[in-house]
Amino acid sequence: MNKADLVAQIKQKSSYLCIGLDPDLKKLPPHLLTESDPIFAFNQQIIDATHDLCVAYKPNAAFYEAYGSKGWESLEKTAAYLPKENFNIIDAKRGDIGNTAAMYAEAFFAKMNFDAVTLQPYMGSDSINPFLQTPGKWAIILALTSNASSADFQLWPGKEGLLYEQVLRVSSTWGTDENIMYVVGATHPESLEKIRQIVPNHFLLVPGVGAQGGDLKSISTVGLNDSIGLLINASRSIIYAGNGKDFAKAARQEAMALRKQMDHILNTYKSS
Amino acid sequence: MNKADLVAQIKQKSSYLCIGLDPDLKKLPPHLLTESDPIFAFNQQIIDATHDLCVAYKPNAAFYEAYGSKGWESLEKTAAYLPKENFNIIDAKRGDIGNTAAMYAEAFFAKMNFDAVTLQPYMGSDSINPFLQTPGKWAIILALTSNASSADFQLWPGKEGLLYEQVLRVSSTWGTDENIMYVVGATHPESLEKIRQIVPNHFLLVPGVGAQGGDLKSISTVGLNDSIGLLINASRSIIYAGNGKDFAKAARQEAMALRKQMDHILNTYKSS
Repeated sequence: MNKADLVAQIKQKSSYLCIGLDPDLKKLPPHLLTESDPIFAFNQQIIDATHDLCVAYKPNAAFYEAYGSKGWESLEKTAAYLPKENFNIIDAKRGDIGNTAAMYAEAFFAKMNFDAVTLQPYMGSDSINPFLQTPGKWAIILALTSNASSADFQLWPGKEGLLYEQVLRVSSTWGTDENIMYVVGATHPESLEKIRQIVPNHFLLVPGVGAQGGDLKSISTVGLNDSIGLLINASRSIIYAGNGKDFAKAARQEAMALRKQMDHILNTYKSS
Repeated sequence: MNKADLVAQIKQKSSYLCIGLDPDLKKLPPHLLTESDPIFAFNQQIIDATHDLCVAYKPNAAFYEAYGSKGWESLEKTAAYLPKENFNIIDAKRGDIGNTAAMYAEAFFAKMNFDAVTLQPYMGSDSINPFLQTPGKWAIILALTSNASSADFQLWPGKEGLLYEQVLRVSSTWGTDENIMYVVGATHPESLEKIRQIVPNHFLLVPGVGAQGGDLKSISTVGLNDSIGLLINASRSIIYAGNGKDFAKAARQEAMALRKQMDHILNTYKSS
């Protein structure tokens, strides 16, 4: 999906919500556990109940790999089921040398038809380049992550600023705002202003709203740009909103509440 | 496998060779392509022909994921087939927040019984800690990788030295040389002396000898320590040494040649 189509979808839905599909068998509604593929059954119902409210989905690969080849099958079925209208991200956080990175690009773009893959910056440009070769496909590079120990290296001061700032500056030259986005955790609202100075035009994928405690409004006020430029991800707060037979309805209500806030913010932003 | 057992195995075999199991359907001997699982059939014969000459195996997850759930099945079968006497590494280069990292640890340690996983340092301690909780299981953290663009960030100068040096200094405090190793590419022999000053006792996993052009002797001279401390990985130069029905024999000869050099180096090192 190219940038213009993503922005058009956000405007049409008045939502920049991304839903994280991180299914954990220990947390699924118990009645699904008798299904032949409980994870896919769960995802299917979540997708059916929310696809008009969100613009993106983001399965985290770890939650599928944890169940081996069967989990990988659930991921493949989920990928095939994701609506083409949505922007579909595989949260894989991969990073490897060129020829190996090309294998990952093949797996996630060509075979599973995801629009975007999250990637590690540590190995530099040749670990990212294979993901920048197909129009409409995106590399989403980790910049400043939402976890507590993101400070260990990402905030390490170099001669030209902090490491994550250097990652933004250098990696943004490898592609454009039409094929690169950045992961910026909602737990760092104080850094967003700086980030917007370095990458004013790129989309930011922001996890950490909801279960991890980030605040939607403060993030949006600083992060929104002229082409929206934000995808806000919520996972657990939506997909585990309910645990009974009506779990998908509970997920829809939670997604609606977030979309309503986003609609309000977008209208305020437009008129300011 | 604990450190003492790994060192004992190296001394007994007079080899610190790790063989990378990176099967690519486009490069497999053609006669294997009619097998129901060509990748597993290939790995099986490579393992049978080399397990007495190497101390470690290292499948790279990307080469399996590229074939979807079927590839993942080949990886599971390969993991189950790997001899328990060998130190078995899954080269997955994963990195994610704590609860997600724990899912990866479950997949690779508990389910697939690997001894070690390669990991990305960028997200800091809570992305590594879940891999340090089980005695005999290891985190192998990327420090200075073998690819050309490793210089983009790993050689970035901070106030306390280069980024990869900071990664070594900080991450080595998260565990011990009994549960952490480091990836150091053979393409950086000039940096090994510095690395040995920072982590004198840790094992280093060194890819890049062979196809990527690193030199075994110069690496070993600087890298070996009192408990050996090196695992030298070769992938393509061994597994694709032949392409006919005798490919496993050709792989064995290539592995023997490397082991012979290692035996010579170890004897020289001992007597110096």
